[in-house]
Amino acid sequence: MAFGSFDNQITRRGYVTQQMDQIWSERSTVQNWFDVEAALARVQSAIGMIPATTGAQITGQAKATDTVMTQILSSGSGNPFALGLDALRRAVDDDIRQWVHYGATTQDILDTARSLQIRDSLSLIDDCTDTLLKRIRNLAGRHAETLMVARTNGQHAVPTTLGMRFARWVADLERSRDRLTDVRKRCLLVQFSGAAGTYASMGSHGTTVAMGIARELGLVCELIAWHSSRDGLTELACNLAIHAQTLGKIAEDLYDMQRTDFQEAAEALDPHLSGSSTMPQKRNPFSTMKISAAARIAAGAAATILTNSPGDFERDHRQLEVERDAIPRILAAVDGAGQNLLKLLDVMHFDANHLDANARREGVLLVSEGIMMKLAAQLGHERAHDLLQDYSAAYRADGTSLREFVTERPEITECLDTINLEALSDPSAYTGLSAKLSRRIATGQPHTGTDITE
Amino acid sequence: MAFGSFDNQITRRGYVTQQMDQIWSERSTVQNWFDVEAALARVQSAIGMIPATTGAQITGQAKATDTVMTQILSSGSGNPFALGLDALRRAVDDDIRQWVHYGATTQDILDTARSLQIRDSLSLIDDCTDTLLKRIRNLAGRHAETLMVARTNGQHAVPTTLGMRFARWVADLERSRDRLTDVRKRCLLVQFSGAAGTYASMGSHGTTVAMGIARELGLVCELIAWHSSRDGLTELACNLAIHAQTLGKIAEDLYDMQRTDFQEAAEALDPHLSGSSTMPQKRNPFSTMKISAAARIAAGAAATILTNSPGDFERDHRQLEVERDAIPRILAAVDGAGQNLLKLLDVMHFDANHLDANARREGVLLVSEGIMMKLAAQLGHERAHDLLQDYSAAYRADGTSLREFVTERPEITECLDTINLEALSDPSAYTGLSAKLSRRIATGQPHTGTDITE
Amino acid sequence: MAFGSFDNQITRRGYVTQQMDQIWSERSTVQNWFDVEAALARVQSAIGMIPATTGAQITGQAKATDTVMTQILSSGSGNPFALGLDALRRAVDDDIRQWVHYGATTQDILDTARSLQIRDSLSLIDDCTDTLLKRIRNLAGRHAETLMVARTNGQHAVPTTLGMRFARWVADLERSRDRLTDVRKRCLLVQFSGAAGTYASMGSHGTTVAMGIARELGLVCELIAWHSSRDGLTELACNLAIHAQTLGKIAEDLYDMQRTDFQEAAEALDPHLSGSSTMPQKRNPFSTMKISAAARIAAGAAATILTNSPGDFERDHRQLEVERDAIPRILAAVDGAGQNLLKLLDVMHFDANHLDANARREGVLLVSEGIMMKLAAQLGHERAHDLLQDYSAAYRADGTSLREFVTERPEITECLDTINLEALSDPSAYTGLSAKLSRRIATGQPHTGTDITE
Amino acid sequence: MAFGSFDNQITRRGYVTQQMDQIWSERSTVQNWFDVEAALARVQSAIGMIPATTGAQITGQAKATDTVMTQILSSGSGNPFALGLDALRRAVDDDIRQWVHYGATTQDILDTARSLQIRDSLSLIDDCTDTLLKRIRNLAGRHAETLMVARTNGQHAVPTTLGMRFARWVADLERSRDRLTDVRKRCLLVQFSGAAGTYASMGSHGTTVAMGIARELGLVCELIAWHSSRDGLTELACNLAIHAQTLGKIAEDLYDMQRTDFQEAAEALDPHLSGSSTMPQKRNPFSTMKISAAARIAAGAAATILTNSPGDFERDHRQLEVERDAIPRILAAVDGAGQNLLKLLDVMHFDANHLDANARREGVLLVSEGIMMKLAAQLGHERAHDLLQDYSAAYRADGTSLREFVTERPEITECLDTINLEALSDPSAYTGLSAKLSRRIATGQPHTGTDITE
Repeated sequence: MAFGSFDNQITRRGYVTQQMDQIWSERSTVQNWFDVEAALARVQSAIGMIPATTGAQITGQAKATDTVMTQILSSGSGNPFALGLDALRRAVDDDIRQWVHYGATTQDILDTARSLQIRDSLSLIDDCTDTLLKRIRNLAGRHAETLMVARTNGQHAVPTTLGMRFARWVADLERSRDRLTDVRKRCLLVQFSGAAGTYASMGSHGTTVAMGIARELGLVCELIAWHSSRDGLTELACNLAIHAQTLGKIAEDLYDMQRTDFQEAAEALDPHLSGSSTMPQKRNPFSTMKISAAARIAAGAAATILTNSPGDFERDHRQLEVERDAIPRILAAVDGAGQNLLKLLDVMHFDANHLDANARREGVLLVSEGIMMKLAAQLGHERAHDLLQDYSAAYRADGTSLREFVTERPEITECLDTINLEALSDPSAYTGLSAKLSRRIATGQPHTGTDITE
Repeated sequence: MAFGSFDNQITRRGYVTQQMDQIWSERSTVQNWFDVEAALARVQSAIGMIPATTGAQITGQAKATDTVMTQILSSGSGNPFALGLDALRRAVDDDIRQWVHYGATTQDILDTARSLQIRDSLSLIDDCTDTLLKRIRNLAGRHAETLMVARTNGQHAVPTTLGMRFARWVADLERSRDRLTDVRKRCLLVQFSGAAGTYASMGSHGTTVAMGIARELGLVCELIAWHSSRDGLTELACNLAIHAQTLGKIAEDLYDMQRTDFQEAAEALDPHLSGSSTMPQKRNPFSTMKISAAARIAAGAAATILTNSPGDFERDHRQLEVERDAIPRILAAVDGAGQNLLKLLDVMHFDANHLDANARREGVLLVSEGIMMKLAAQLGHERAHDLLQDYSAAYRADGTSLREFVTERPEITECLDTINLEALSDPSAYTGLSAKLSRRIATGQPHTGTDITE
Repeated sequence: MAFGSFDNQITRRGYVTQQMDQIWSERSTVQNWFDVEAALARVQSAIGMIPATTGAQITGQAKATDTVMTQILSSGSGNPFALGLDALRRAVDDDIRQWVHYGATTQDILDTARSLQIRDSLSLIDDCTDTLLKRIRNLAGRHAETLMVARTNGQHAVPTTLGMRFARWVADLERSRDRLTDVRKRCLLVQFSGAAGTYASMGSHGTTVAMGIARELGLVCELIAWHSSRDGLTELACNLAIHAQTLGKIAEDLYDMQRTDFQEAAEALDPHLSGSSTMPQKRNPFSTMKISAAARIAAGAAATILTNSPGDFERDHRQLEVERDAIPRILAAVDGAGQNLLKLLDVMHFDANHLDANARREGVLLVSEGIMMKLAAQLGHERAHDLLQDYSAAYRADGTSLREFVTERPEITECLDTINLEALSDPSAYTGLSAKLSRRIATGQPHTGTDITE
Repeated sequence: MAFGSFDNQITRRGYVTQQMDQIWSERSTVQNWFDVEAALARVQSAIGMIPATTGAQITGQAKATDTVMTQILSSGSGNPFALGLDALRRAVDDDIRQWVHYGATTQDILDTARSLQIRDSLSLIDDCTDTLLKRIRNLAGRHAETLMVARTNGQHAVPTTLGMRFARWVADLERSRDRLTDVRKRCLLVQFSGAAGTYASMGSHGTTVAMGIARELGLVCELIAWHSSRDGLTELACNLAIHAQTLGKIAEDLYDMQRTDFQEAAEALDPHLSGSSTMPQKRNPFSTMKISAAARIAAGAAATILTNSPGDFERDHRQLEVERDAIPRILAAVDGAGQNLLKLLDVMHFDANHLDANARREGVLLVSEGIMMKLAAQLGHERAHDLLQDYSAAYRADGTSLREFVTERPEITECLDTINLEALSDPSAYTGLSAKLSRRIATGQPHTGTDITE
């Protein structure tokens, strides 16, 4: 029992939280089956399909006790769900035994029980995202004016502020959170329509029972069987993977900022965890890497569900087995990544000195755009662009100043005189709306404007 | 120019519709760039950043004419967007030339222009889904009571009606359509914040311009640069792939129903398209297979985006190139699959005789569940289940009737007397709520009940 | 510890074999680390880098005992490999402690140890494939002449024999086995070149030590560090996934043959495992479905590795974490699927009567090709093709015989007289080389001919 | 016809080479069909199945002329292969018309023709790899001693030489090339066994014809139909994707070395292609990014094939359509990436000064391992490791020298005296076997040692 990294005791640290572990334990799984069976019985009692007190009696006995777990797991063979049902039947009084699982089919219970586990998992994830958002909004405010360089395609682009980076994280996480809210109505579903969606085993009570179960458990009642329509779970998997990739991007930003060559951020590291067995000076950013790895594993698992073959006819166990493997893994990955990031932010120090120094690494070149815009008013865009492009090459060759460079181009000297080159050359003066936007995001204001018209 | 199946002239038939082809043509792409440039100029004129009439002038010239296209495509080298910009600048009067693309960066235009192409594509797809829904609701009503067998795990399960199959398609497509509506607010975005999201090139007007462009073009204004935050497009890709898989499942249902061994449906085929070059009797269901293939291609392309590496820092062209290849392909696949399905439904005949015969293939075994439920009232669930399981084996061995089988089990004969075996044995009497639900769906009523409580 | 299906005690039955479980247990993993450390010490003793007897001493203590495992796993924190190294150091005498892991780096040990686990896993898989091949060759011989219908695109195509199906399985498995042999030289590698491939910690002995370890452990010595070059493991993952898909295709063939609508094969099922909780007549082919599911999970995991981002610079833990999760899962899936198939073939009965009946379902239509070929000699290919195509429609409409159909086409009657229609109409006479090829494969002769010229 | 990036005229530059474009053009595709038809006819003439001169006659007319292409492409409908066959039949004399495509089935021709296109594509790719290997071996020799820093997990690890990086590229490409050689025998296959693998349409000549075609075309003769056994093409796709990822890793190394923050390499860029429309100083490494993007697209497409559902029964068009879309795209991506890399290496300058400066960025810390190894002889490994770890923190805080740091630790001062700290502190003295190995690889010697024992 040590195949996947989330289950292997050597590798699972840093991936799996205790709460998520609890939700998906074998015992919780069985308890969720029993909770659905109990809800079913209560509903059937309430509408008179089975004796009035039976629902409460079954509910009272529907506990995944040690005995029950042993009965399910110790047997070398047998269908675990059938063994669980046997155990539940053994647990109740003989006279009500026949009303356990009355009119139900295995997949109905498995699917509905998993909806409950998914809901609990999503709650964990949402709580974590909320806390992350608070923390990061805070950082956006604090660093609204901390100068840093924006890099595009690996190259220094223009000045920005560290606050803007946090503002982006906030916008990304907010979209991600909305996405996980939208999917709830399509994935937290009751499955309860009998062997193949006709409710035949329930007589005329079918949809009433289904609605009752939904009410009891706080799930959406989908009246049409989704036994072979797994779009809701696929959407869930994809949205979670996108959330994981969002956390992964944040982690990669932090990984890069911690590079020896950048040193824009530093983690207060436990040397026994982050060190190398052979290179004493190493400060490996393992937390960021665990988050990235979790994101990749989640994305790969979601892609596996997304490319899973459609189910055959009314139900296809092959399709379901793939989900069964992937869904808990994706939820664990996302939850662990979020919690890891929370912890990481607590010990992360952002280094304003290095940020500033990196931004000034190529001097005036970083504000080429700003200077070009000013010169363009007189030279036209193209001449201004070419001039600055040529100057960049000259600067890199021998560090010549723009003023020196221009002296050899008398036709341009005049233009230069009309602009305040010194003021323009300061990267911290060319950060545009960075500080303003950072503060806007820091105070929780929306990051989008007008709505779409279709 | 014949690599992908949607572009190769030999293979593209049956995948690509004329409208989608038009939306993503090179010319339309350039026109959308120009439309964004024109909207930008109009907004800048309106707020006084550039001369008041310039917006209208640029708009008047922003046409992807033959000349423009030749300038972009005939050159063996050069960045096509830069060539397009050159062409636009050449097209306008000299004195306003400098206001073309004023303060803008390439990716802002490319991303916003693509939002327009995506919106047009989604409209096509939504229209098609609406028509499909109408058509299928109709079928659900017409076949509400047409008996057929439900198959689970490849085995005959219980009786159902053909209407229920259509009802499932409707529920699936409705969820799919909702999903494509939800994603709009996160993917039909304006990108307009300058080189790295600071709006520095726009002075203090930055967000005003961005909001103006959103208003002009009917898109959502996302104020924080999403240059390296591609979650919206990833969600779009996944939701489209799920839609494709939904269409693919419908196609696979139809593929299976057309099997020589099933003959539950038959397509009025054009023999020149569906035939085999060597087997004259073949009726290959190519339309269903094209839909399935489109679904797989779309799912694979979405998985490619979903597992794409996060972008580096503030922007990363590598990440964007993967989207650029995949997004139009996914949209084409989904649109083509939907249109194919529409055409297919027009020529599809559902064969009630074969449906009925297949449902009766194993006689009374198909209603084992119903008989068991009745017997369970007296025998208990387990004894009833075991009895019917044994009987199934006996029936398959020698076709013995249930009544004969029971004569050798005197303890059960009595039970059998208490139930109306003949009535129970008729599969058409054990279709539960199939007809009722089919009609409910046919009339457009909702397929879900109570709402989730978080 | 219940996230993935291969680790969850409720779901792992039918996926994981005891031997594979043993190879990848936490204890075996640690033992393999220690085996590499021991081999390293022996090599270093042999060439005089460390005292002559130290290698043997360390080897004697390098045991993953209960104590060692507790030290590694009970701690709530700490790098498990570092804890293992501590445990090993504690286990040896004080004076040789410093020679444990001498000059080595963590990843060198982890990668090399995993090569050993992979080798053991591949041996299991190869043995299983060999047994499968024997079994299936046998079936090919036994059913060389058992008539069945070949289906293409879901339609009855031409007659074939059941032996040919087994012959295909053999050819597929032989290619698959060859593929797993070819990859060994590129994935069963020693990693041993120090922290970043320079061997600096080993003085001039570096490559000698690496070669020695390779000899001790029976692995390939790759002299250039593959810390961030994971092509060998990616190829392994892909080849295993292809093997899984090959087993999956066999399983899908068996799933389809067991359909209620086909009944060409039947599994002697354990009713307690294959039954439905609500439909007593069901015979769910769960073994075939577990194999299919394992194939999909393996393919998805391999795709995750294949699309994993390239590693950053000389080593990138993110990349490695993805492998670490996926490789054991893929090996488990493939091994379990193979063993499942072996067991399944033992209890699978092929039903010659149903095979024959299905082949004759559309009477003479199945041999349309053969009749067309004969008629073409006189009518030309196109006329013959069109005639048979028209006849197929007529036959399906009213069951008319070919002779009747032709009477209304006097120009063709003559042609018909020249051929022996009765002989041609027997599907068992139109199986071509099926029996001959089946027997050829049954006797282990090669399925390929001449070699490629490049 | 502008959906995928390799086909869209705006985006295809930098992805597609002229030769690959030619191989996969619609015309070449048809020509390859005709070449197989011609080979078939020659073989059938040679063994007397058809008149002796027919093979040569058909060969003479089997040209994909303008007329033929118009007949295939202008028609709005119809199966393109059938139209092509009609065109070929029209092109030959009436009396031999019936012998065109004699006994063949469509997929046999399509699959075999594609094997030819794949072979031509692999030749292009192999040639490019050979040239790359030459070029890179050269670089390995030239830079065998050029100091640089090895980075692991984003952190400076130990000194190495630039030559070692090239040595790794060589080893990676050599394994990749071997992999593409190994797959040939499993993917360059003839498909020729009739409608479903029985050769029934060929009488007793079946395998003789198949062998003959293989000889004529220089392909492997696989006697068992692989209509639904696509493992060879899947392996090809995966191996190509691994090759693409290998090229992608090289590109990412070059992307990173060109970062403004690293400046270890610089591309002689065409400013009009690499520049930004708004930031004149930018030097975007577009070539490296195109290679990376091609690698991701190839990997995604291969993953799509790898996770493609197994084919249904004896043949399944759905499965084949997915390959048809993906295989040419993968080949184009790999070929374009290789050619791009070749061009890139021609204009790439490696900057020894920046490489050196970066290696010395953290002074003596980079050789911590070496110093620790020396001290460990006296202090033991753990004390030495802890000492250097503490020193690293001190150095980073205030730049203290190791000697100063040790003065406060009198118990260690002595140890320090026994080692030559100055010599040890020079990173260029701690590059181990870097230069030696670089030269070994430069001269084409093997990078692996002893063989595996199973």
